[in-house]
Amino acid sequence: MSSAQATRKTSLTGVKPTGEPHLGNLIGAIEPAIELATGDYESLYFIADYHALTTARDPELLAHWTRSVAATWLAAGLDPQRTVFYRQSDVPETFELSWIFSCITGKGLMNRAHAYKAARDANVAAGEDPDAGINMGLYNYPILMAVDILIMEAHAVPVGRDQQQHVEIAADIAGSYNHLYGDRGYRFPIPEAVIPPETTGHTLPGLDGRKMSKSYDNYIPLFLAAPKLRKLVRRIPTDSTPVEDPKDPDSSAVFQILAQFAPDDVVADTRARLEAGGVGWGELKNQLADVLEERLGPMRERYEALMEPGSELDDALAKGGEIAHERASRVLRSVRHAVGIA
Amino acid sequence: MSSAQATRKTSLTGVKPTGEPHLGNLIGAIEPAIELATGDYESLYFIADYHALTTARDPELLAHWTRSVAATWLAAGLDPQRTVFYRQSDVPETFELSWIFSCITGKGLMNRAHAYKAARDANVAAGEDPDAGINMGLYNYPILMAVDILIMEAHAVPVGRDQQQHVEIAADIAGSYNHLYGDRGYRFPIPEAVIPPETTGHTLPGLDGRKMSKSYDNYIPLFLAAPKLRKLVRRIPTDSTPVEDPKDPDSSAVFQILAQFAPDDVVADTRARLEAGGVGWGELKNQLADVLEERLGPMRERYEALMEPGSELDDALAKGGEIAHERASRVLRSVRHAVGIA
Repeated sequence: MSSAQATRKTSLTGVKPTGEPHLGNLIGAIEPAIELATGDYESLYFIADYHALTTARDPELLAHWTRSVAATWLAAGLDPQRTVFYRQSDVPETFELSWIFSCITGKGLMNRAHAYKAARDANVAAGEDPDAGINMGLYNYPILMAVDILIMEAHAVPVGRDQQQHVEIAADIAGSYNHLYGDRGYRFPIPEAVIPPETTGHTLPGLDGRKMSKSYDNYIPLFLAAPKLRKLVRRIPTDSTPVEDPKDPDSSAVFQILAQFAPDDVVADTRARLEAGGVGWGELKNQLADVLEERLGPMRERYEALMEPGSELDDALAKGGEIAHERASRVLRSVRHAVGIA
Repeated sequence: MSSAQATRKTSLTGVKPTGEPHLGNLIGAIEPAIELATGDYESLYFIADYHALTTARDPELLAHWTRSVAATWLAAGLDPQRTVFYRQSDVPETFELSWIFSCITGKGLMNRAHAYKAARDANVAAGEDPDAGINMGLYNYPILMAVDILIMEAHAVPVGRDQQQHVEIAADIAGSYNHLYGDRGYRFPIPEAVIPPETTGHTLPGLDGRKMSKSYDNYIPLFLAAPKLRKLVRRIPTDSTPVEDPKDPDSSAVFQILAQFAPDDVVADTRARLEAGGVGWGELKNQLADVLEERLGPMRERYEALMEPGSELDDALAKGGEIAHERASRVLRSVRHAVGIA
């Protein structure tokens, strides 16, 4: 790490393009991550398209979601002028460094990775061969993630608790490299996971009242046309309290979603009106649909423009890819020399 | 595979730069492989420097052996004008394709690879953790070798029996790819191992009479200075038959080495003289030293010139690397498109 690079710390956020973004992603992941770019860090964001290939078998869908997730982040406010925003596949140096790291990474470390262990345990529990249906992409993934982090010389990696171990593996690999080759002109900074505080504000109830999640299939997609959005909001379950009775806002999924999207004064006013009685669930749902449309409408319009071929999305990704590729080339050049590859 | 590529079949030979080349390598591997280039195949040869990184921990030595093994093959007669001669590390596409193959390769296939199984069995026999000391480079190696073969669209891979399984794994991976993505504009040719017939002419006895091999430390290095070469030849064990007695050429390591390096008429004459008696082992050893020096002297001179920085070796590798890189880029471009990477 040159001292010029060290003046400002770098944070890195990876986004896996595996499906339709929903309201929960926006509140729980996209917006908090974008806020980072306004902090003290140099912020890098990448679309982990090659990571998605561990499970994606439909090429058209993979290409679609890669573009879609990039458009989503820009539409949600990521500023490609103030960040480095790129696709993993625009940094081919990633894979060469993966091989180098493979050669200094013990197989035991991969055996202990949570995602692999979970898949293995499930196979054993089902009486299958322990490695049944597990591909080498899944098994190697912690090395790929280590490279994603280290090739950008990232110091801070904002992740959920489930990803903390991967950042620790990256730190282990950086340590092994520095130990073996650190006296040959290049050392990796040791990355750290930054785990966001678990605030209730960051989870959103879904259409069935449970946490909004793709796995529960209870989510409201971000970019639904207004009439469909309204229709979906009407499906959120409510109790049978009569219109005129007082209602508990905190046990209402409709109110909880509204609380995340409406301005503070509107939220306070709605809470008071619910507690006073006289507001029916139907009325509250209409209000939520309006609030969502006000917030999501302009975002959807921007998303749709970005999804057009040749939009500024292409320029942003090309420019970000170029910067990321340059950074990665510089690091890889140093590492190649250090390990003895001419 | 485009039809333009299909007109002539391609053979691929990989060479791992892990140590000093010796007489046994020349007779058993280098010369038979070079002969291929005179056959019907388009012949590709590469120095597997990144493969060597699975075990090489001394960067200076790795760089040295990479250059040294390349110089050896050119000195031994490989014609870089009639072949494609390159370093694995000059084809970075290799590693990106490795990731793609990882994602379509079951972990079970790697578990069954001989080299990994042998290391694992040795650990278990020693009461260690089964994966103790095994790095991910070793474990992933069959995928790397599959890429080496497939990215060059090789049809024939001349290998020893111990490497046959690796070529079969490459064929398996090509089959998986073709099955999953073969309808999207690109299919890999299925490679086949070409196992040379096991002729006694291809093994050479070493300084202790056993097969010449690095593992037995009984080898005669290819590029020793003449006096050292003579000294080493004198160390080859002989029996105590007196000078005047008839001798059995076929049980003499000295004669067997001579038989590989001297012209046929010289070999026949020496055989007759040994069988007639009157020739001592000392005289035979002097003759062998002369024969070897005659054959290896010019090769050594050429090797030393090639090892100089900026020699024609650098030009040959740069040119070969460029050609190999172009081929690999074309294949990778097709595969990226097929799997859904924009």
